[in-house]
Amino acid sequence: MLSENDYKKLTDPESVALVGVTSRSGKGSNNPLEVMLEWGYRGKIYPVNPKGGTILGHQAYTSLLDVPEIPDVAVICAPRDAVPELFDQCCTKKVKLVIIVAQGFFDGDERGKSMQKEILKAADKHGVRILGPNTLGVVNNFNRFCTSFMRFMNPTAATGILCQSGVSVVGAPQIFSGIGLLIDTGNTTDIEFSELLGHIVRDPRLKVINLHMESLRDGPQFMRAARDAVALKPVIVYKTGASPDGAITASSHTGALAGEDRVFDTAFKQCGLLRVEDVEEMIDLNKVFTTFNGIKGNRVGVVSISGGAAIIAVDACSRYGLEIAKMSGSTEDQLSELFPAWAHCNNPVDMWPAGMFHGYHNSYRRILEAFMEDPQMDAVICITGSFLDKEGDFLDTTELIREIAGKYPEKPVVAWTYGQRFQDYAREFEKENNVLYFYSIDRAARALSALYRYHHIIKKKDYRPVSTPLNPGQAQAGKILAGKSAGNLSQTDVFRLLESYGIPVARWGKAENIEEAVSLAEKVGYPVAMKVLSPDIIHKSDAGGVRLNIGNARQLEEAFTEMRREIENKQNGARLDGVIIQEHLDKGTELILGCKRDPQFGPVLAFGAGGVFTEVMDDISLRVPPLSEEELTEMIEETKISKILAGARGATAVNLDVLTGCLTKFAQLVLANPAISEMDINPLLAYADRVVALDARITLDR
Amino acid sequence: MLSENDYKKLTDPESVALVGVTSRSGKGSNNPLEVMLEWGYRGKIYPVNPKGGTILGHQAYTSLLDVPEIPDVAVICAPRDAVPELFDQCCTKKVKLVIIVAQGFFDGDERGKSMQKEILKAADKHGVRILGPNTLGVVNNFNRFCTSFMRFMNPTAATGILCQSGVSVVGAPQIFSGIGLLIDTGNTTDIEFSELLGHIVRDPRLKVINLHMESLRDGPQFMRAARDAVALKPVIVYKTGASPDGAITASSHTGALAGEDRVFDTAFKQCGLLRVEDVEEMIDLNKVFTTFNGIKGNRVGVVSISGGAAIIAVDACSRYGLEIAKMSGSTEDQLSELFPAWAHCNNPVDMWPAGMFHGYHNSYRRILEAFMEDPQMDAVICITGSFLDKEGDFLDTTELIREIAGKYPEKPVVAWTYGQRFQDYAREFEKENNVLYFYSIDRAARALSALYRYHHIIKKKDYRPVSTPLNPGQAQAGKILAGKSAGNLSQTDVFRLLESYGIPVARWGKAENIEEAVSLAEKVGYPVAMKVLSPDIIHKSDAGGVRLNIGNARQLEEAFTEMRREIENKQNGARLDGVIIQEHLDKGTELILGCKRDPQFGPVLAFGAGGVFTEVMDDISLRVPPLSEEELTEMIEETKISKILAGARGATAVNLDVLTGCLTKFAQLVLANPAISEMDINPLLAYADRVVALDARITLDR
Repeated sequence: MLSENDYKKLTDPESVALVGVTSRSGKGSNNPLEVMLEWGYRGKIYPVNPKGGTILGHQAYTSLLDVPEIPDVAVICAPRDAVPELFDQCCTKKVKLVIIVAQGFFDGDERGKSMQKEILKAADKHGVRILGPNTLGVVNNFNRFCTSFMRFMNPTAATGILCQSGVSVVGAPQIFSGIGLLIDTGNTTDIEFSELLGHIVRDPRLKVINLHMESLRDGPQFMRAARDAVALKPVIVYKTGASPDGAITASSHTGALAGEDRVFDTAFKQCGLLRVEDVEEMIDLNKVFTTFNGIKGNRVGVVSISGGAAIIAVDACSRYGLEIAKMSGSTEDQLSELFPAWAHCNNPVDMWPAGMFHGYHNSYRRILEAFMEDPQMDAVICITGSFLDKEGDFLDTTELIREIAGKYPEKPVVAWTYGQRFQDYAREFEKENNVLYFYSIDRAARALSALYRYHHIIKKKDYRPVSTPLNPGQAQAGKILAGKSAGNLSQTDVFRLLESYGIPVARWGKAENIEEAVSLAEKVGYPVAMKVLSPDIIHKSDAGGVRLNIGNARQLEEAFTEMRREIENKQNGARLDGVIIQEHLDKGTELILGCKRDPQFGPVLAFGAGGVFTEVMDDISLRVPPLSEEELTEMIEETKISKILAGARGATAVNLDVLTGCLTKFAQLVLANPAISEMDINPLLAYADRVVALDARITLDR
Repeated sequence: MLSENDYKKLTDPESVALVGVTSRSGKGSNNPLEVMLEWGYRGKIYPVNPKGGTILGHQAYTSLLDVPEIPDVAVICAPRDAVPELFDQCCTKKVKLVIIVAQGFFDGDERGKSMQKEILKAADKHGVRILGPNTLGVVNNFNRFCTSFMRFMNPTAATGILCQSGVSVVGAPQIFSGIGLLIDTGNTTDIEFSELLGHIVRDPRLKVINLHMESLRDGPQFMRAARDAVALKPVIVYKTGASPDGAITASSHTGALAGEDRVFDTAFKQCGLLRVEDVEEMIDLNKVFTTFNGIKGNRVGVVSISGGAAIIAVDACSRYGLEIAKMSGSTEDQLSELFPAWAHCNNPVDMWPAGMFHGYHNSYRRILEAFMEDPQMDAVICITGSFLDKEGDFLDTTELIREIAGKYPEKPVVAWTYGQRFQDYAREFEKENNVLYFYSIDRAARALSALYRYHHIIKKKDYRPVSTPLNPGQAQAGKILAGKSAGNLSQTDVFRLLESYGIPVARWGKAENIEEAVSLAEKVGYPVAMKVLSPDIIHKSDAGGVRLNIGNARQLEEAFTEMRREIENKQNGARLDGVIIQEHLDKGTELILGCKRDPQFGPVLAFGAGGVFTEVMDDISLRVPPLSEEELTEMIEETKISKILAGARGATAVNLDVLTGCLTKFAQLVLANPAISEMDINPLLAYADRVVALDARITLDR
């Protein structure tokens, strides 16, 4: 982990060496020294350039080794091929923090990758930490420290930013409405989000933290850091690079359904991160979190110049989970006298009729003041027009709204204005930082909703991870798995493994031929089910390898013969090891419990509707374990099938404790046995007071 | 229907009377004469004001009757209470088209509603057509005819607009990037969208038509007009006022699932309308349709200054159904020499490494030109920076992009730029109307996708409605329904009705007591199902009124007694008319066929996953009949359960002709029998080559 001292050196260094900096300056030179001077960094700067001389008034050293002190940070700003040698100089000089700007390493060809590996090896040996490569580095707008070689503007805002791409650096003045402190980890070969997050979130100058994430090395480590962070401040995450093709080769239902982006999404939700879908949502959420300190609830008042726009506001609030406030009696009394007898005075208020009778400004003022005083309203959306140039517009209430909003700093006021001059009005609205303008009412509602979600749901929830005790059956399970080769575990071993963990399996036995099958069925008791045993068949029913509700020995014999024939047709050459004979069970609710091992997050659990509809209905919830009781319950309730489990449509309600108990054992099993790469129990049959696994499959890791 | 002549009078009148116009002018006077003069309308204007005199240099008549000719249009611009008398003057004067501006009629109190009814009665008698009330009227920017009393700007664009609220009128310069021709139908008590659409879509000056809809009187009439319109031009619809509470009181599954907004959504899709979700999507779609004449396909090239932004573009294209184009071999050859050996030259192109070696402008130009020449690319997204003021920015490629785009008018070029100065760059991009700037890459992709959808899917599809022949069973069905009172039709009548239309029902009979039940079961053949018959029980399984798989007479007797007891517990007092005994059927795929009668659209059909999961899974597709074969197939394929019907997961595939045949009969039944207000066949069991109704319910209208 990056120590606090190292973090401080990285973001607020007293001295910095620019190793390999160009001697050119001006347009197109991409000279980071020039940018640093323009920004006004006040620490010591040591340019290093083999030609020496003077660069922009600063003496240049021909080697880093000649620099008269050990700089806090070295920025290697030379092209790729010069990097290894310059990095060696950093190691020799005992610089502890090195920013590598160049592209072409892990993001380039084979040569770049091997250069990168050599550098990492040297870093490890000398205790050097690397930011990058392929990064613009650090931008700290509080001390004007900026390592970017690209010039851009530097408005200060209370936003912290961790990113992996230059678009979030030089685009920051737009995307985050400015920069407080930004760190670009580039290819992220060493220093990563997880270790930076705990530091940046504790910076008292920042009100909101942003993550623009392209990839992640260690999911669980990141989740720990994120859970810790959201207790302190809102953390917005923009994850790009969703790859819908990622899950195509999965061998299990869970593998097929739990695609890469869906797992990220689950992990983000589990940590209380606010995930945004695009750049504009990131812009809006940064505005709302840097402007407002909170919101008391989700009840919204709407003051509109237009009835049609008021309807849009109702739709928008409903879409984003806000309530249209019911105005209090005293507000209603105060306002009704403003309106003609035929007009309703409800929230949302179409204030036009009042304006016609009592003057537009006067009416707008009285309504908005009443709303701000009304304890039933937690925020107000103001809708106005921008039909004309401001000077000529007698309907311009921008200043009035700003003035009233300023008196109630605890109640967010947001605005939408429509008309050709909306951009001018937008600027006016935001002039004193107490009203926010949004480009649409939907975006205003979305931003208020995020404010509500953070302050009333996320910040109040306990996101601390729980620990999962070892299941007493692990010794037995370990024996079953010992020495097993990669690939599909045999059906008999799968059942034994479940049973070792206390997960009930429908009564079963193995038979290698017709005779054994008949004698086994007598013991199990008719009717029985028969399923083929084959290391080559994963989806048994697809291959014709399942027969249900077999009533007697004669039917069993026929079914045995016919099943062989069908499998030969459908999957010729599949090895057949016999059959499983299993008790027939009354129809319960078919569920799936699944697990896949994700490259970033490790085991990911799936729960949902099972049986033949599993993939078709895709009614699945995911979670990264370990999970608290509360999270297990949420996981179940997130699915549609949970309504059936709760007794909807005349179904028998299922005891949820039994189900969460089974989920817990399942989680224990996959956490304690990393060899399991994919696993489905499908169907798991749920009855009023028990659950039973009817079928299951397990794939072991290669 | 509004005749072409009347439409022309309404939108392009030679003379207009402003009846009840105020004599005040200037700020806050809301004088439509002032606005009309400001806009420069060149027809004859007759102000009418009881005080006479001169208004803004125009002689005012004390009564409309004194005006020296019959004006093409009269605009009544007096407050509500003065309207009836002024409307009488219009009738006496034989004005054929009257615009009523005032609020407070159907949108107001009881008095307003009855005034409105009187006016409509008089209009009917005198053959007068009314636009409004509660409207700003007509804005025609081609002849500068504008009846709005609110002042706003008037940039001209090739957009046609039909709306029901002032927000779309005075907001039009922003929302539609200007106005070509706009008609605000206000409360829409007479002239409505359906009759205006056919006229406005044929105006050669307009490239795109917008509907901002709050309500609709006659759904089928609107659908006919919309289907006709989309064959000519893209029609965008923004429907506001979705009421999620609308469906709560429904008595059937279909009623519960087919909420008001979902029915609108279905109808819009069936007509090929492009529905937008918010104001910003409307802004974007208007820009794209007024700027580009088409797009050849959905394969997109991306030229980006940033690798991170290129990743965002891939996500955005995937989200909106666009393909990232594979560049042709010759493009690859041309471009690879621009890049250093370690860099990949793929689409999307991160052009930065090329820029470092071959100059930024030169590289951007060569890449973009190659993409524009590449026949594998149908559109190009350009991503640039706006980090600095344009004058100081050596990375500014705005002009270069505009210049190249101008040479290839058939290939849309859209742009996103990020940085604090994005608005300045945006204006520059759009200066010559050949490049469009979007506020995010997602919005750029969404707009291109709409362009593709219209030109490649909607315009090429045959949306003409089909006719549905009468089912030969209608005579019999009519007899069954004759004289039936409102409420639930008895189970036996429901089954007979289905059978009369040729919809197969599982073999059944009615029994009034245990003895009859046993003797009936002998005839039907064990195992059988038993279902309670009661006019008071709608959801039989919820009430405990269903027993399945009864194997013999003893079980039947027990089940009969126990069922009575359970129903007494669950729904005490329900009248019991006996039971239905029905054949036991092997498990097929459970489907639902449903219908609800929508107040706007009439019968709406539902198809999807049936059984106990119907409402929980909500896997339903809706359609407004009549339907072509193609639409029936689409309706089935839209559901998830259709994958099971197609044979997924080892299921037996179902013959789709049999299913569409059954759907056709179902559609015939509800179309020919308007007394049916809600109906479910659930489950309809589907097998390889037949479908069978196992249960069904019908509610007749009150």
